[in-house]
Amino acid sequence: MSSMVILTESDLRKIIGLDLDAVACVEDAFKALATKAVSMPPILRLDVPEHRGEVDVKTAYVPGIESFAIKISPGFFDNPKIGLASTNGMMVLLSSRTGLVQALLLDNGYLTDVRTAAAGAVAAKHLSRDNSKVAAIFGAGMQAKLQLEALMLVRPIREARIWARDFAKAQGVAVQLTKALGVAVTAVADPKNAVAGADVIVTTTPSETPILKAEWLEAGQHVTAMGSDAEHKNEIDPVAIAKAWLYVADSLKQTRRLGELHHAIATGTVAADAAFPELGQIVSGQRRGRSDATQITIADLTGTGIQDTAIATLAFARANAAKAGTIFES
Amino acid sequence: MSSMVILTESDLRKIIGLDLDAVACVEDAFKALATKAVSMPPILRLDVPEHRGEVDVKTAYVPGIESFAIKISPGFFDNPKIGLASTNGMMVLLSSRTGLVQALLLDNGYLTDVRTAAAGAVAAKHLSRDNSKVAAIFGAGMQAKLQLEALMLVRPIREARIWARDFAKAQGVAVQLTKALGVAVTAVADPKNAVAGADVIVTTTPSETPILKAEWLEAGQHVTAMGSDAEHKNEIDPVAIAKAWLYVADSLKQTRRLGELHHAIATGTVAADAAFPELGQIVSGQRRGRSDATQITIADLTGTGIQDTAIATLAFARANAAKAGTIFES
Repeated sequence: MSSMVILTESDLRKIIGLDLDAVACVEDAFKALATKAVSMPPILRLDVPEHRGEVDVKTAYVPGIESFAIKISPGFFDNPKIGLASTNGMMVLLSSRTGLVQALLLDNGYLTDVRTAAAGAVAAKHLSRDNSKVAAIFGAGMQAKLQLEALMLVRPIREARIWARDFAKAQGVAVQLTKALGVAVTAVADPKNAVAGADVIVTTTPSETPILKAEWLEAGQHVTAMGSDAEHKNEIDPVAIAKAWLYVADSLKQTRRLGELHHAIATGTVAADAAFPELGQIVSGQRRGRSDATQITIADLTGTGIQDTAIATLAFARANAAKAGTIFES
Repeated sequence: MSSMVILTESDLRKIIGLDLDAVACVEDAFKALATKAVSMPPILRLDVPEHRGEVDVKTAYVPGIESFAIKISPGFFDNPKIGLASTNGMMVLLSSRTGLVQALLLDNGYLTDVRTAAAGAVAAKHLSRDNSKVAAIFGAGMQAKLQLEALMLVRPIREARIWARDFAKAQGVAVQLTKALGVAVTAVADPKNAVAGADVIVTTTPSETPILKAEWLEAGQHVTAMGSDAEHKNEIDPVAIAKAWLYVADSLKQTRRLGELHHAIATGTVAADAAFPELGQIVSGQRRGRSDATQITIADLTGTGIQDTAIATLAFARANAAKAGTIFES
């Protein structure tokens, strides 16, 4: 018999939010990736072509952390036709000492939303200018909203622009965010105008062709690209990677294979073996981040298993402290 | 809100057993692997070296089957020191149409035990001589017992020999099995003597050096090797692979990387690109199995995600019919 705790999305929303604790948790995870003997195997990816479905499974073990998560993330892109969300999923938390299941986190993707947004905040904290005031967000989905919210935790954002393929959707999100975050958020029809004068640009779309042109980029801007988590997705003009003063990967092994870098390599803009720092190396001080206010920096975030282990471990600790969830014996 | 059923090991033991239905279920899975556009990505493997732990995650999607399983199998080899089983685990069953979680199968490895033993029966059914009467089992663990039980479902076994590194353990298992299965089972101290005159030999150990020598093999014998599910495990003398009339893989891609075949390739006994049939091709009639009573046949079973999807789908259907398990909303 073994005993585990089951936490529903509603349980998890009560104990984990997008706040500075979540950002610190994910920041520590990136630091561990650069400084500890982390085991983080390549993503397992299953395709279900008949139903436009795909499932990613991610995991990572960090020496010294008592648990590790295995995250199951399905994306089924015909779901909206029948009134269901495209993405959902859950995490299983296992003991690092025994492999026994400690918790089932039935989050429907909520913890992924939080840790993905928190990674954006970590990138902005270490790469954007301290005085960044204007944000441009590409996309009008859940991450568009959360990335702006996360950015505001670490930078004094006073103004934001939203650009999305569907302008009406961008307008709706702009109204929502103005109200929710207390800053002026406007929808912008031309993506070039969204970028002009912005301090931080965050791309959050599933685009398969670049939506951010290299020639739009201005001195001092920081770009976080977080939409590309699969080979066919590409938000950033490959030339921008070569043009940037600093390109940073969440996991270089992964971005070479499925991030923005992958497309820069494929088009010959960047050499396949070109070395770049990882975010964790900058967080830990092993590599240098931005060194003056005129540099252009790009963070390429494809999503890593270590972020899942970090947020799931935090959720488990808080659930234990709050005696949240349902105990289940098997 | 989504609704799923949670099935515990005890629920699952009531609805799934090692019987001809389980064998047919796994046989169909192998056939699908050969005849349908199955998605079966490479195993995700995570190592936890500080605690002698490892986790394998397997999955497979079969077109036309309404669900697919993602199986999490941890093995933590220091667990027995603290009174816990080394292996345990669970499966998550997802809808092939929506990716939503349909069931959590908290089986502690029970379904894996059944589907692994059932695969042994499928191999023996298609490769061993119809009149096989004498079995030799290497190993004295759970699979040693289940493989003999499974073999008896498909072949008229009248006598069995057990060899294990620990002779006392082999003796204990022999007594147990004689009683449980109603055939004469004896422990044999010398593995060579266990093999002499046997019709079917099943190796079920985690050995890292060959325990079955090529020179012991006799005309007409069938060998199922099912212990090697990782690169470092090796039960069968590489020369035996070359010597056999027929070598069959559960998944050739996988046995080239981590089965007995992997060692035959590594030692240069077999060419890296040598072509061999897969069990599913023989089940479906695409390739020929044994064609006379003197041939030596070897089945190399490393365990495949499609077996997990098959047994989990059967368990889910039976649980629905029996209204077994606990409904959980999240």
